[in-house]
Amino acid sequence: MYSYKSPIRDVRFCMQEVLGFASHYASLPAGADVSPTDVDVILKAAGKFAEEVLAPLNHSGDEEGAHFEYGKVRSPQGFVDAYKQYVDGGWPRLANPEEQGGETAPYSLKLAMSEFMQAANHSWCMYALLNDGAIKTLMSFADAKLIEHFVPKLVSGEWLGTMCLTEPHCGSDLSQIRTRAEPRDDGSYAVIGTKIFISSGEQDFSDNIVHLVLARLPDAVPGTRGISLFVVPKMDDRSASGNANSLRCLSIERKMGLRASATCVMTFEGARGWLVGEPGRGLNAMFAFINNSRLGTAQQAQAHAEGAFQSALAYARERLAGRSPLASASGGPSALITHPDIRRMLLTQKAIAEGGRALVLYCAKWVDLADSGGAEQRASAAERLAVLTPIAKGALSEWAGEATDLGIQILGGHGYMKEWGLEQRVRDVRITRIYEGTTGVQGMDLLGRKLLGPLRHGLTDLSDEILTFCRQVTAAELKVMIARLTEAVKTWLALTDLAAERSAADPAFAGSVAVDYLLLAGYVSVGYMFILSAQVASSKLADGATEEAFYRAKIQTAQFYFDKLLPRIHAHASSIANGSESLTGMPEASFGLEV
Amino acid sequence: MYSYKSPIRDVRFCMQEVLGFASHYASLPAGADVSPTDVDVILKAAGKFAEEVLAPLNHSGDEEGAHFEYGKVRSPQGFVDAYKQYVDGGWPRLANPEEQGGETAPYSLKLAMSEFMQAANHSWCMYALLNDGAIKTLMSFADAKLIEHFVPKLVSGEWLGTMCLTEPHCGSDLSQIRTRAEPRDDGSYAVIGTKIFISSGEQDFSDNIVHLVLARLPDAVPGTRGISLFVVPKMDDRSASGNANSLRCLSIERKMGLRASATCVMTFEGARGWLVGEPGRGLNAMFAFINNSRLGTAQQAQAHAEGAFQSALAYARERLAGRSPLASASGGPSALITHPDIRRMLLTQKAIAEGGRALVLYCAKWVDLADSGGAEQRASAAERLAVLTPIAKGALSEWAGEATDLGIQILGGHGYMKEWGLEQRVRDVRITRIYEGTTGVQGMDLLGRKLLGPLRHGLTDLSDEILTFCRQVTAAELKVMIARLTEAVKTWLALTDLAAERSAADPAFAGSVAVDYLLLAGYVSVGYMFILSAQVASSKLADGATEEAFYRAKIQTAQFYFDKLLPRIHAHASSIANGSESLTGMPEASFGLEV
Repeated sequence: MYSYKSPIRDVRFCMQEVLGFASHYASLPAGADVSPTDVDVILKAAGKFAEEVLAPLNHSGDEEGAHFEYGKVRSPQGFVDAYKQYVDGGWPRLANPEEQGGETAPYSLKLAMSEFMQAANHSWCMYALLNDGAIKTLMSFADAKLIEHFVPKLVSGEWLGTMCLTEPHCGSDLSQIRTRAEPRDDGSYAVIGTKIFISSGEQDFSDNIVHLVLARLPDAVPGTRGISLFVVPKMDDRSASGNANSLRCLSIERKMGLRASATCVMTFEGARGWLVGEPGRGLNAMFAFINNSRLGTAQQAQAHAEGAFQSALAYARERLAGRSPLASASGGPSALITHPDIRRMLLTQKAIAEGGRALVLYCAKWVDLADSGGAEQRASAAERLAVLTPIAKGALSEWAGEATDLGIQILGGHGYMKEWGLEQRVRDVRITRIYEGTTGVQGMDLLGRKLLGPLRHGLTDLSDEILTFCRQVTAAELKVMIARLTEAVKTWLALTDLAAERSAADPAFAGSVAVDYLLLAGYVSVGYMFILSAQVASSKLADGATEEAFYRAKIQTAQFYFDKLLPRIHAHASSIANGSESLTGMPEASFGLEV
Repeated sequence: MYSYKSPIRDVRFCMQEVLGFASHYASLPAGADVSPTDVDVILKAAGKFAEEVLAPLNHSGDEEGAHFEYGKVRSPQGFVDAYKQYVDGGWPRLANPEEQGGETAPYSLKLAMSEFMQAANHSWCMYALLNDGAIKTLMSFADAKLIEHFVPKLVSGEWLGTMCLTEPHCGSDLSQIRTRAEPRDDGSYAVIGTKIFISSGEQDFSDNIVHLVLARLPDAVPGTRGISLFVVPKMDDRSASGNANSLRCLSIERKMGLRASATCVMTFEGARGWLVGEPGRGLNAMFAFINNSRLGTAQQAQAHAEGAFQSALAYARERLAGRSPLASASGGPSALITHPDIRRMLLTQKAIAEGGRALVLYCAKWVDLADSGGAEQRASAAERLAVLTPIAKGALSEWAGEATDLGIQILGGHGYMKEWGLEQRVRDVRITRIYEGTTGVQGMDLLGRKLLGPLRHGLTDLSDEILTFCRQVTAAELKVMIARLTEAVKTWLALTDLAAERSAADPAFAGSVAVDYLLLAGYVSVGYMFILSAQVASSKLADGATEEAFYRAKIQTAQFYFDKLLPRIHAHASSIANGSESLTGMPEASFGLEV
């Protein structure tokens, strides 16, 4: 097992050299202003915490798993202590409102430093890092009394929150939700129902757990417009007796990965809760910050790609096998890293980790603007995010599956063994393609709901930005890449037109091509990140920068991306052009016949 | 968890309707002649055994895992009893020589029925189904005395065999083998060394275990030509005392999947063994039947694709989620199977399972001819197999990874949970991309060793066969598919010429493009299988066959394959054309810089 090293230099490259975070932060409202030095201090501290506290608990946490005994969850050895250090370090407060005890750092900074923690120990982060969504939801939709009661303790990390959406009979389709909330005389509600797949629904990190629960009022209309949001604490300390609330964890799931994280079946047996926001507007409140949580998932995936790359690279440098065609004719076996096909796999991982990082941070900048820019800026940032988020979440989770899997492949038989940690990455990262909406859901969100709906101009805004940038690049060494990206953008636009045209007559068209379309959009978007990065690197080299190898590698990784990964758009484009017929034509019975 | 159903109808379709196994078997030497009725009887019996005996032990075997206690392996509950039934049913004898107690059925029949057992319980098959390779190796290379001593008990299934190749410091690169064999006075050898990744190196299925071990004689030259093959039994009952031999299992591996299979670290501490074949020709003997074992691995992968497809299909038929765009405007949620993106995933699985099955059986026919055709036929069959085997092994193992993974995705959150069995398929099938040579090794075997080496005409023979067939197909409904396959074959040929040309000046070219090349070859080869199948189905429909839905589905699955999967060759072709530069240009240090 190799140790994890937080890639601080590359985060700094993305934020400060490529994406201009210094001026970005300076432009945000007072209090959100963070200097590059502040960023560095926070990245270093978070990186150290990830390397020294979280990473050593990753494999042992997987081996031990979360325990469920007598209705209580016990997290693996060391997890609670790491959380105490996290709280003591003030990390939960980082990107939360000052008036609630927070530090008011922008969302993007919290996300930037989260990569290290996610890469070091995804399971642990499932307990500790999901609070900000609950805080934002309460701050935006709950009344002052609820905010006063719940938010400060969530901000300090004394309490932790959950999101309770899914029920046993429905996953992505929340219109089927059956959990109900009955009014009580004191203005609160009795919540009754069962929720599944609740991360940290029960845990031993915090004394209280603040559940945000989707449920129906007695007079609710069917479907999604009958769903309201409630806050339901585990410990109902606002009741006279200060007793435990009427809710329980029935069991925890046995999963492929994230074994150290407790995924709970929760039952609410008349638990006392309070309405958050308007009746019937529960989905609206729950999904107000869906871009943030989906971007967080994109980052979890990207972080695994980085982690798998680091381990595979270390192995490929040590391990000898066969004579590389690049080695001299005499001599013994060569290191794996000298073999072309091993390099192909390593560079695929590297391109996904680095291109994905840039895309996540690019999106994070838009989140900052959507959160706290001027009114017009907020609206346009929200639109940009609406387009970019499903792309980042969908594509990065798919490619991180590939990158971690290549980690196994580079190690060969050893990669299949638990002791090297690569197979754990494959198991852990697998959930990122599912939760916060599957890849299919992201594809339909992007194409069906947005680009073929009211947000067609969101794509034009993005493609204009890319094409304008492409026209401005003059470095000769980037010429071929620029030409390829320009062509890829045009393919994307043409296929969007095609989809609009074909969808008019074919209701199944969008769904049939949505995942191909999403991945194609992903390749173009990450291609843009590589051009941005390569352009910066090229200028730095032209200016005689130190760290020549670092900047040169940026250009070479971009070159690899354009040579070996971007061409996948040809497959997706063909598949899109071939439409829906071969998907919709087969009768249900013919998929599998009893003959 | 859904039950497994052996797809007997589809195996029969491939063998009898598409690939002409009736006349093929009739053409084989006496004793190998098997009527279609015989085939059916065997398929049905094997299918029933797989469904009723093996499948019920698959999940429990994974949960329990193989045990290692006091130097002994204990397989999971029920495994040994299932093996007793397997032996009592005479299955080990099926495709083995009559004079050794076998039934002389052709290899292809053994392989055909194996799909069901592999799909039902891959781990169990790792103990029970690997004997035939050891038997063939001994029959071909060992002297009469060794054959007489070992083979009959291997054929009956009383003893089981292993292959001991890999050592701790070397995986694919066997030139580094250090295990040594020292001559003893009695004509035997003392074998000393450590072997890893030995499937069933120790087990509780058989009293004796017959190890085939690669080792070096004292005067051996370095490299692969210094490696000899030895047979080393666990119980040395030819010694005066009938004692246990000096070899031990030191530990078993903790793996991502195949947890019920014991993967052993074996140490040979002067164990008594006997030379098999000529000194220095050990690799030759061990790899004489490498096509068979690689084809077996291709089938393991394909079998998992089928198993994952069956489970995902059952779930997609039951589960309701959202309104399909194809459903009427009113009414409740639709079954998953009505959603276009779910259909895309199911059809991808189905195409991989069915196209893969046809390819495996197509290859198996060539194995029969290479085993027992006329002299000239043997040579040409061996050449065809040399081309097809790495394609089938490499491509099917990669695509089965995708097909099983889609099984998780179709089930969404439930797919990530152990109870549904999909995640076990992903973990179990993962090894097929590694053992018997990784995908990278298959790619270099195909392109570097064979098609750019002495076997260029092997590709011409295959492409001529495909193009000739394409020219003969007249059915209008297949016209577009024929055109696409013809173009794909030409792309394959053109890229082979390109690779030959570029390799002349660039020693890294073949290795840089080998996996892209292998997968492209795979898509073309499976495309051929789909055209063969669709052509048969089209004729049957034209002739007014019953089972209309079955034959129609064959054409529709082919249509899906040509619309949605074959286009991936465009990505691989681009990547090949983009060559080696972006792989070889980056200095080793620049892959990951300490900055």
